Amino acid sequence: MNFASDNWAGAHPAIAQQLLAASAGFAAPYGASELDKAIERRFNELFEREVAVYFVGTGTAANSLALAAINRPGGVTFCHREAHMLEDECGAPEFFTHGARLAAVDGELGKIDPAKLAAEIRRFPADFIHAGQPMAVSITQASEIGTVYRPDEIAAIAEVAQTHGLPLHMDGARFANALVALDLTPADMTWRLGVDIVSFGATKNGCWCAEALVFMNPAAAKDLLFIRKRAAQLFSKSRFIAAQFQAYLHDGLWLALARHANAMAARLQQGIAASGGARLAWPAEANEVFAILTQADAERLRTAGAVFYPWNPPHATPGLLAEHETLVRLVASFATQPDDVARFIDVLG
Amino acid sequence: MNFASDNWAGAHPAIAQQLLAASAGFAAPYGASELDKAIERRFNELFEREVAVYFVGTGTAANSLALAAINRPGGVTFCHREAHMLEDECGAPEFFTHGARLAAVDGELGKIDPAKLAAEIRRFPADFIHAGQPMAVSITQASEIGTVYRPDEIAAIAEVAQTHGLPLHMDGARFANALVALDLTPADMTWRLGVDIVSFGATKNGCWCAEALVFMNPAAAKDLLFIRKRAAQLFSKSRFIAAQFQAYLHDGLWLALARHANAMAARLQQGIAASGGARLAWPAEANEVFAILTQADAERLRTAGAVFYPWNPPHATPGLLAEHETLVRLVASFATQPDDVARFIDVLG
Amino acid sequence: MNFASDNWAGAHPAIAQQLLAASAGFAAPYGASELDKAIERRFNELFEREVAVYFVGTGTAANSLALAAINRPGGVTFCHREAHMLEDECGAPEFFTHGARLAAVDGELGKIDPAKLAAEIRRFPADFIHAGQPMAVSITQASEIGTVYRPDEIAAIAEVAQTHGLPLHMDGARFANALVALDLTPADMTWRLGVDIVSFGATKNGCWCAEALVFMNPAAAKDLLFIRKRAAQLFSKSRFIAAQFQAYLHDGLWLALARHANAMAARLQQGIAASGGARLAWPAEANEVFAILTQADAERLRTAGAVFYPWNPPHATPGLLAEHETLVRLVASFATQPDDVARFIDVLG
Amino acid sequence: MNFASDNWAGAHPAIAQQLLAASAGFAAPYGASELDKAIERRFNELFEREVAVYFVGTGTAANSLALAAINRPGGVTFCHREAHMLEDECGAPEFFTHGARLAAVDGELGKIDPAKLAAEIRRFPADFIHAGQPMAVSITQASEIGTVYRPDEIAAIAEVAQTHGLPLHMDGARFANALVALDLTPADMTWRLGVDIVSFGATKNGCWCAEALVFMNPAAAKDLLFIRKRAAQLFSKSRFIAAQFQAYLHDGLWLALARHANAMAARLQQGIAASGGARLAWPAEANEVFAILTQADAERLRTAGAVFYPWNPPHATPGLLAEHETLVRLVASFATQPDDVARFIDVLG
Repeated sequence: MNFASDNWAGAHPAIAQQLLAASAGFAAPYGASELDKAIERRFNELFEREVAVYFVGTGTAANSLALAAINRPGGVTFCHREAHMLEDECGAPEFFTHGARLAAVDGELGKIDPAKLAAEIRRFPADFIHAGQPMAVSITQASEIGTVYRPDEIAAIAEVAQTHGLPLHMDGARFANALVALDLTPADMTWRLGVDIVSFGATKNGCWCAEALVFMNPAAAKDLLFIRKRAAQLFSKSRFIAAQFQAYLHDGLWLALARHANAMAARLQQGIAASGGARLAWPAEANEVFAILTQADAERLRTAGAVFYPWNPPHATPGLLAEHETLVRLVASFATQPDDVARFIDVLG
Repeated sequence: MNFASDNWAGAHPAIAQQLLAASAGFAAPYGASELDKAIERRFNELFEREVAVYFVGTGTAANSLALAAINRPGGVTFCHREAHMLEDECGAPEFFTHGARLAAVDGELGKIDPAKLAAEIRRFPADFIHAGQPMAVSITQASEIGTVYRPDEIAAIAEVAQTHGLPLHMDGARFANALVALDLTPADMTWRLGVDIVSFGATKNGCWCAEALVFMNPAAAKDLLFIRKRAAQLFSKSRFIAAQFQAYLHDGLWLALARHANAMAARLQQGIAASGGARLAWPAEANEVFAILTQADAERLRTAGAVFYPWNPPHATPGLLAEHETLVRLVASFATQPDDVARFIDVLG
Repeated sequence: MNFASDNWAGAHPAIAQQLLAASAGFAAPYGASELDKAIERRFNELFEREVAVYFVGTGTAANSLALAAINRPGGVTFCHREAHMLEDECGAPEFFTHGARLAAVDGELGKIDPAKLAAEIRRFPADFIHAGQPMAVSITQASEIGTVYRPDEIAAIAEVAQTHGLPLHMDGARFANALVALDLTPADMTWRLGVDIVSFGATKNGCWCAEALVFMNPAAAKDLLFIRKRAAQLFSKSRFIAAQFQAYLHDGLWLALARHANAMAARLQQGIAASGGARLAWPAEANEVFAILTQADAERLRTAGAVFYPWNPPHATPGLLAEHETLVRLVASFATQPDDVARFIDVLG
Repeated sequence: MNFASDNWAGAHPAIAQQLLAASAGFAAPYGASELDKAIERRFNELFEREVAVYFVGTGTAANSLALAAINRPGGVTFCHREAHMLEDECGAPEFFTHGARLAAVDGELGKIDPAKLAAEIRRFPADFIHAGQPMAVSITQASEIGTVYRPDEIAAIAEVAQTHGLPLHMDGARFANALVALDLTPADMTWRLGVDIVSFGATKNGCWCAEALVFMNPAAAKDLLFIRKRAAQLFSKSRFIAAQFQAYLHDGLWLALARHANAMAARLQQGIAASGGARLAWPAEANEVFAILTQADAERLRTAGAVFYPWNPPHATPGLLAEHETLVRLVASFATQPDDVARFIDVLG
């Protein structure tokens, strides 16, 4: 009953096997192997256009180097107040941009409110250098609290970004989970709506460590080769990342894994909604369920072997919890077993 | 006949299999798993003392974070003029230290000359802030040109470093190759001689991506957890690095792999020395052979399928090459086959 | 009728004359002159203890280097949401700390609320590296909105800072204005209450460009000489800053100038309070008055020659303005003339 | 007899008086005053084209922000081995560029050898990211050892820079001294020869603290306003720098001061050449004389009240000194008195 996080899972067998298969023989290092090149081309197909793609080792690296590529002195990136890059990356985005700032924007259900975004951007008038200058907007898809931006919501944010000449970045640590939730293609969830840069995460959805930084406009990423190397993210045996993507993207495996994770979350959600004592904090739309339990129930579940984390209530939800209640996050992954879900619901009662 | 670099090899089967075995099940992320902890303890045994060990993904990361941990404003790290961190890391050490400088020190055979080191350090008197301040000495073991510091040479450098209160870092991207060449223990090649920090590389010697940053004095690394996370080098599924080290360090595998690589290099060296047209640039002491070929021979070898790189003659060797000659680097690894060595020598004639 | 800002004023005649007097002759550069040393010692008297003092050229430099001196990887400095370093320094504090973050803390009247400070710090538990680590608390005295922390308020914040092992920095761009408002000595307004570092500003109060970074514990600033030089803030003809402080601190000039500025602000305040159409946004406690005018009155004053800026209502004051109203900031300085104040009040009616 | 450095002098009376005159009245801060704007326009005249000009407080700031404006990840700036930015700025250029490196180029008499520059740049092939990427060439005019690049020498370096697409920066801390030595106009010594960016120093030649960063192509400096503010180099009372330039550039004062300094250096040189025991290390071409004295003579001069510094012999001059000899630097400035020169020569005998 491990619902702690999707990064508690290991690697999907097909991916692990592909890695094993790729371990033999000599191959050009530093991204120059045929496999690396082939997988890079695979991303062109995936996104239905020529993209620039750079493999890196962690999601924090993908997000940080995305911002580094479009960095401006005194730059300000607008993201949701609960964004991972703002809450959980130990200042890496600021570090890799030499101090460019992240500005928190509010919005319901973990998603940026376009009107509030516009208002926040207007706080940085072009001729007032003391405040710094806007440099990007970043959204998280799926969001940090398990919700999913609908296409029109992304388009509305993209419009605000474009109005101010700002590139739009998508932190896609759970890109696949959002994609299958919306039943869209990668192109339809990104550049056709105005997204310019994607942190295309695969680690949480079944890989060991495979993240791709995807630029819709390759010219915008011209210095990324140097930025990545200088950031210590150019792996000498780069093929081991390429091989993970090879299996991940083969024959729709990545979509199947995300569908499984989302389905497991949906079951958890149904069980919780139907339970007597627990309730949902807000609707789960991808592979994460946020539930409000009594502390006694939470304790009982842990005693029964369930692993999960408490979660700080979002700023936008004052009064979410009654006394004796706790907000918890339950994450499903490719590795989540239906039996574990059933047992969790059973123990919850 | 691939002698291009040890990072053209893949992963040793035992390591690849261990990774596969570790792919199942749930484990705490971010270095908190039992396997991570067990392997960290394994390093205590290895170094015969309590060390602080941090897994990272690339050698550049290990070197850069080593310097970041001991960073000083206006800091200067003294390394050999041909050091990897100075020549081949795209400014990463400077980036991760926010501009601390690398100062080139000369010395024969790719190794720092202690007297020249002392002279260079003296160029930075303590009360002359304009020049900056010394912050570390770094040596590469085995060196960038395939030579190996002998214990007394390390001790002499350590003495200079200690005289000036500077920590001594060892870039051990080819630590194992040097270790078996000298037939020493890790402790005897490092802290017993005065080495304070080691970039303990395993990638070149049979892993996918496994580097450990080892601090002999754990207190000196107190901020490294934050430095590593902020540097985007904390892997969520950290166990996949731990698993590589598990196999690598098990039952002396790492030493066996290094001995094989060194033996293959020794055979190459013997063959070249015995050949009519080629000669050694300097003695190979680990797994890299630097040879002077006629350009015609080099061409002929490449046509026959040999893969290797030309190498810029070191600054300390003016007049090394006659006209029509080329300096080449031949690297052996755990994956080098005796037949390939034999064939190379055969083609060389 | 210039109430735009205290940095629209030039230099007080006594300070300008001292500069002129100091322009002749040779003196050791880079802070080594006898005058530099004498003025540094003057700060020991001023603060009634041995302090470390570093002259820099701008207030932004003082604040940024204060944080640089106590920098930590992934570091977080807690300051008021309206703090100058957060709103008006173009990311300089983040830049000089390589990305350490500023966390906004709320509080009434431009002053940090100690309870909210404690709550915000607790969001960074020591063992949760993803969030970063607290590194400092910074207060602004006088505050960005013209209020002044009372001694007990500073002590309460210092207690929270000390509980968490954090140094307390005071941005004293308007140090003198606060000091005379409280009728305290520098020691009583700083270290006796728990303040560790002061950005001691003199530019706004009558100098050209004279800011001193004062560390109550000299040992805490040991690398500041290098930090300052590397930050391009070590002036070769450093005596020209020292000379400004010489006149500024001589015979209480600085206190007299601040008293004058505060008195002019008090008159403005009285006039506004007594006027028919305007009102005070909150009480002015130093040399800045924040007033709510009708837009018609603001226009009329500007037509009559008054110079002043509109001001964004603080986050903590929703509903501050009625329609047709505007919030404006009126700043008095050493150079403000009573006649200008009288005329402003007269025009306001 | 102070020949220690031109920054031991104070301010020229005309400049000090202009500062005094500018101290009264209100003026828009942060470079927005009429005086600031007028002086910026004055630079257009001076350079006979529309330039972008930014006032900063120190020469280190000018050089560092010049590089920051053209910064590239993994960037490498080529400068002479004895360049001030490489030897004497405590890593500031690296700091403000987040780790871009300075590569030392050799050349006789303190001046870059164009052929060696080309060879050094070729060490960074465009497709070899490990080495980093060239980003600029910087020359010092007058050089660190008192020599002056002739126009054809600048043009030859500019040609190499342009061939590789690199902007050419001129560190003009002693711009005026070089200009009058060559009897050229600013345009003829800079952009007409291919110089793109100038650190236009005035501090050493009679100002308190007045440095201007001049971009021949204003579009290349579009982010400099943010870079400067973030670097804490935007002075609130910016007019105090503008006023210094006002007097400095008025009626050829700056050229007269430089001519005086150079003439004093020429007299020193003549006297030394004619003396029995001392000799010139190399010809003085601006306001600095490098002389080889016996240690006994140096001691005797110091006892007689002469102030001057020893100087490390340049790398390019092995065997410069006989035993018992010392290399010293003698700097003349606007403030150097003929009597002091005469007395120095007299004591030297």
